[in-house]
Amino acid sequence: MKDLTLVRSNERIDDLERNGYKIIQNPEVFCFGIDAVLLAHFAKVKGMQAQILDIGTGTGIIPILMHAIYQKGHYTAIDIQEEMTDLASRSVKLNNIEEDIKVLCHDIKDYMNFFKPNQFDLITCNPPYMKDTCGLKNQHPSKMIARHEIACTLEDIIKASSYLLKERSRLCMIHRPHRLVDIFNLMRKYAIEPKRMQMVYPKLHKEPTMVLVEGVKKGNAELRVEKPLIIYNEDGSYTEDIYLIYGKRGL
Amino acid sequence: MKDLTLVRSNERIDDLERNGYKIIQNPEVFCFGIDAVLLAHFAKVKGMQAQILDIGTGTGIIPILMHAIYQKGHYTAIDIQEEMTDLASRSVKLNNIEEDIKVLCHDIKDYMNFFKPNQFDLITCNPPYMKDTCGLKNQHPSKMIARHEIACTLEDIIKASSYLLKERSRLCMIHRPHRLVDIFNLMRKYAIEPKRMQMVYPKLHKEPTMVLVEGVKKGNAELRVEKPLIIYNEDGSYTEDIYLIYGKRGL
Repeated sequence: MKDLTLVRSNERIDDLERNGYKIIQNPEVFCFGIDAVLLAHFAKVKGMQAQILDIGTGTGIIPILMHAIYQKGHYTAIDIQEEMTDLASRSVKLNNIEEDIKVLCHDIKDYMNFFKPNQFDLITCNPPYMKDTCGLKNQHPSKMIARHEIACTLEDIIKASSYLLKERSRLCMIHRPHRLVDIFNLMRKYAIEPKRMQMVYPKLHKEPTMVLVEGVKKGNAELRVEKPLIIYNEDGSYTEDIYLIYGKRGL
Repeated sequence: MKDLTLVRSNERIDDLERNGYKIIQNPEVFCFGIDAVLLAHFAKVKGMQAQILDIGTGTGIIPILMHAIYQKGHYTAIDIQEEMTDLASRSVKLNNIEEDIKVLCHDIKDYMNFFKPNQFDLITCNPPYMKDTCGLKNQHPSKMIARHEIACTLEDIIKASSYLLKERSRLCMIHRPHRLVDIFNLMRKYAIEPKRMQMVYPKLHKEPTMVLVEGVKKGNAELRVEKPLIIYNEDGSYTEDIYLIYGKRGL
């Protein structure tokens, strides 16, 4: 019965196929994709009491999935859109994890008004991939803000992260490979050194469509590039690596 | 008979298995590796009259192999070590391509004394991979200079290239992935925009050991990342991609 009171019309509950965790989504607005799943797995939570911030949380998929996977950490999930924080809050309630995941409607550009410096052990972000000026814009404002750098830019995110992270703590992002030079340059500009990277290729003989990057605040200069992550076999089935990430049955 | 007069003791002539081209090498000092072959293939020559500079040419393998592959372009190959430019010059003579490849003993740091600005359509470089301060140093001075940033740094090479390249012309390098952030930052610092990149993985499930990068002088910001280049199949045989690069029999 509790489930029903948390779900609005046009929304549905999806099972994350991991420890019984669920998420509420409105398929007309936004459903999480493989990028959120890959980022949740890439951004490993290291301490039971780790303070984690997810910027632009949308449906809350990243903190909810990380809570499901790692079973540790305290999460703050922010989004500029009240429609999304309302949705994410209800998903958090649905999973009975309000103690560990706080959802707040904040603009990351106002980070100094809401947070203290050096507050977080880990920041995750699945940012809008497209520059404001390029690409066809989707009609729905929530989709537009999730996909285009309208509400905030890559630089806004990295600048805020540099202020909010403790020294030697991590910012983990997923983005499009064509922005890799911008990511590396902006991270170094704001004293977050790129330390770990993984290219995500749809198939073995295809150009990558995503890249995972981990930067460490005030880290030393030396990047570790991980083995390629390939999503599909030639026959269109998932690779073993993806099965391991998604769990046995997949999402 | 000509061959014999060009070869010193301790040296040998290797067949490049491509259009009959050969190279003289001293196996006690330095033999070219797969990195030179990959770079020669990555740095495509576009015009019959293209002016190409190879920085730190060593045995001259890169311009000689590029001449063999593309059958076009005019090459200038420089090295700081007279021992190497003497060797490379003899290989050029051996192939009867002195008209197209000039070998000069120059320090790239003195680029303004030897070259004009905006002189080249393409610059190639297989630089020393290791920072001067790290790694065990090899005893032979030629090997040390080839492997460690003793005679010149990554910044020296990129700075000189920015001066020497025509606008919209290319710098192609191969390097270790752990230096990728340095490469991207230095290229952008000197107005060479990284535009094309390919990760080289020894095997499908291994971390990459090399990365190919192409920067364009005053190019727009947008990186294209190519499909992964994997060297060995799981059984240790070369992949199809490597056979295509090496030619049928391989080197």
